[in-house]
Amino acid sequence: MKRGRDGLIQAKNTQTIEKIADGSILTPKGYKAGGIHSGLRYRKKDFALLMSERPASAAAVYTQSHFQAPPLKVTQESIAEQGKIQSVVINSAVANACTGEEGLANAYEMRRMIAKRFDIPDEYVAVASTGVIGQQLPMEKIAHGCENVEPSGTGYKDFQQAILTTDTCQKHACYQVQVGGKTVSIGGAAKGSGMIHPNMATMLGFITTDATIESSDLKRALSSSIDKSFNQITVDGETSTNDMVLTLANGEIDHEPLTEEHADWEAFQTALQLVCEDLAKQIAKDGEGATKLIEVVVTGARTNEEARIIGKKVVGSSLVKTAVYGLDANWGRIVGAIGHSEAEVDPNQCDIYIEDQLVFSNGTPCPFSEEQATEDLDNEEVKITIRLREGDGAGTAWGCDLTYDYVKINASYRT
Amino acid sequence: MKRGRDGLIQAKNTQTIEKIADGSILTPKGYKAGGIHSGLRYRKKDFALLMSERPASAAAVYTQSHFQAPPLKVTQESIAEQGKIQSVVINSAVANACTGEEGLANAYEMRRMIAKRFDIPDEYVAVASTGVIGQQLPMEKIAHGCENVEPSGTGYKDFQQAILTTDTCQKHACYQVQVGGKTVSIGGAAKGSGMIHPNMATMLGFITTDATIESSDLKRALSSSIDKSFNQITVDGETSTNDMVLTLANGEIDHEPLTEEHADWEAFQTALQLVCEDLAKQIAKDGEGATKLIEVVVTGARTNEEARIIGKKVVGSSLVKTAVYGLDANWGRIVGAIGHSEAEVDPNQCDIYIEDQLVFSNGTPCPFSEEQATEDLDNEEVKITIRLREGDGAGTAWGCDLTYDYVKINASYRT
Repeated sequence: MKRGRDGLIQAKNTQTIEKIADGSILTPKGYKAGGIHSGLRYRKKDFALLMSERPASAAAVYTQSHFQAPPLKVTQESIAEQGKIQSVVINSAVANACTGEEGLANAYEMRRMIAKRFDIPDEYVAVASTGVIGQQLPMEKIAHGCENVEPSGTGYKDFQQAILTTDTCQKHACYQVQVGGKTVSIGGAAKGSGMIHPNMATMLGFITTDATIESSDLKRALSSSIDKSFNQITVDGETSTNDMVLTLANGEIDHEPLTEEHADWEAFQTALQLVCEDLAKQIAKDGEGATKLIEVVVTGARTNEEARIIGKKVVGSSLVKTAVYGLDANWGRIVGAIGHSEAEVDPNQCDIYIEDQLVFSNGTPCPFSEEQATEDLDNEEVKITIRLREGDGAGTAWGCDLTYDYVKINASYRT
Repeated sequence: MKRGRDGLIQAKNTQTIEKIADGSILTPKGYKAGGIHSGLRYRKKDFALLMSERPASAAAVYTQSHFQAPPLKVTQESIAEQGKIQSVVINSAVANACTGEEGLANAYEMRRMIAKRFDIPDEYVAVASTGVIGQQLPMEKIAHGCENVEPSGTGYKDFQQAILTTDTCQKHACYQVQVGGKTVSIGGAAKGSGMIHPNMATMLGFITTDATIESSDLKRALSSSIDKSFNQITVDGETSTNDMVLTLANGEIDHEPLTEEHADWEAFQTALQLVCEDLAKQIAKDGEGATKLIEVVVTGARTNEEARIIGKKVVGSSLVKTAVYGLDANWGRIVGAIGHSEAEVDPNQCDIYIEDQLVFSNGTPCPFSEEQATEDLDNEEVKITIRLREGDGAGTAWGCDLTYDYVKINASYRT
């Protein structure tokens, strides 16, 4: 895969993938969305709905936390039934996590209300929540949302807004790709990095496509994409009880169903990954108190997985994060973070670049321009490249700097 | 093991272990120590020496970083020779890490100079360095130190001072225990948590005892102690290139050599662990910018190891650390940290206490006094207890809060 100018990406098989700058979850055909204020938050929108005109193949990945919240259990159960979802209902403000039996009953009830209103089976409805944990859902307000949220062909901004918590901006992405000679769209909306008392950052991602693909194949494509995107971002190393990325494919574009044998499988897979990567970077950049996006590219690792491990270790290091915030080209901290990853590293075969400057090579520091480095670090996006000589493994991770505001937001939220 | 009043600890076999409040590495018989200013730092002491009157059984544990610094290689080599060390030489200010072949030659030279001056074999000398990485040792200043540092029977404070970097206080501990009816002392000095541009926190620990024990048995006792002490503290999740804990046992007290079969093995092991734990807690408490020591006690895990993993995950969580700083009884963040540890946890079987208050039980939050919690968190030491119902595993971890000063120290060190 090679990226050209103007956001055009050439997949190996010469398929062209195009980024649609103002695209969203409603760019793919056959979807509607909406978002309203239903009284869960003080004034902001807090209740969202995504609808597909017909039942869509569904695939999702969920938090690895032992404390998985009830909405995730209900969504898993829905998808397990037939691999189809037609409607996704989301509330913000209250996460419905650590809420026991009552919380589970409430998540089922939320699903039931949407199913009833749109006259579809319960198992065609997915449920997601984000916000405070340990509180029960205010069910009158949830009922009000279920009855009044109006999906439309233009409601994507309302949807994007209603799923946010303390995020400072909406997050959306869209790419188009040719499948069987026809244009297929993949759009996404996400939230993340917002911290709500007494909660941790919850990450939610919703991806729509009009491609034709079975649930099991969609799951395969999604899992591979997630490993290289959402799983490669870190704001502060935490995992939420409510994290979930859900993908729907409604088959509005009529082509030979996508499988691994399909000639355009790789192009589709790449486009899906780009949507995930785009959303993931937006989440990382909007990390609490963050002023910069940090990208760590690792090449020459023994395996792709080891490259990803090292990248995440570096981008997650508090010392690297504070150094970047302080515009400090502190290669020593990068060495430290690489050094204590589980991956195989030979210090004497390791090069480190901060942007274009080589700062460390073959186990010892190199002379470099501190002035240039400070200038490079004083951008909204900072790139660190680590080149090992262990093998062909490559991977990228994204994160943000650690600032006074991170401490402020998280230490003084309740006071 | 049960702790009584007045610092007296009853080991299972009724052996009594006593904490010596003003004890040090010179409380055990047959040791001398000293520390001087040798020009590596601007004014502060920067060069230290520990001597045993006779060759002592030696055991050490080293950083797991892939970038292990030259002094550690030289010390490993020394101990590997005969398992004996008589002299330990330490400089601060320059870590001699990431310094390649020249750095290794310099570490050998530092060893050779001490061996020559005191007329002992090279392999009886251990070497340690802490400070800036990526810089070569200034060898004239090192030579000056090797020639002029004067070990004495009262020089422990000079020693304790000279090994520090940005630590705000000296760290020492001493415990006495009966072995074969005789009083054996175990003393220690440590440094840690200081961050030096462009470095990461280096942790050094030096432990002396006058007990009689072979190197291999000492290693066994040390490794077990380290797992429950130095390895259980975290300031910011980083590992240094120079971390080392070194123990010397010179056999000045004449008793049946300690082995696992010795009746007093457990008492000795417990006392050694208490020295390590004491030093480790002092390091955690002196973490950069820290205002509090946080202790996380985990019981009821499947294994001791899993208990330690969970404890360290909680005490290392940036969200828990900022919450404690903000006096916020934020059980949700503790749940989050437990939830994403690798250990086995059943959320519905998990209790969480902040000091004496139960705040979370069986998967849901409990009513508790916020006022009392704020008061409890407003102490220099804060205890979080996590009770699982998976098995008999128990473990403790220590750390500190995450404050504005941490960001300040680490973001603006170079400006």
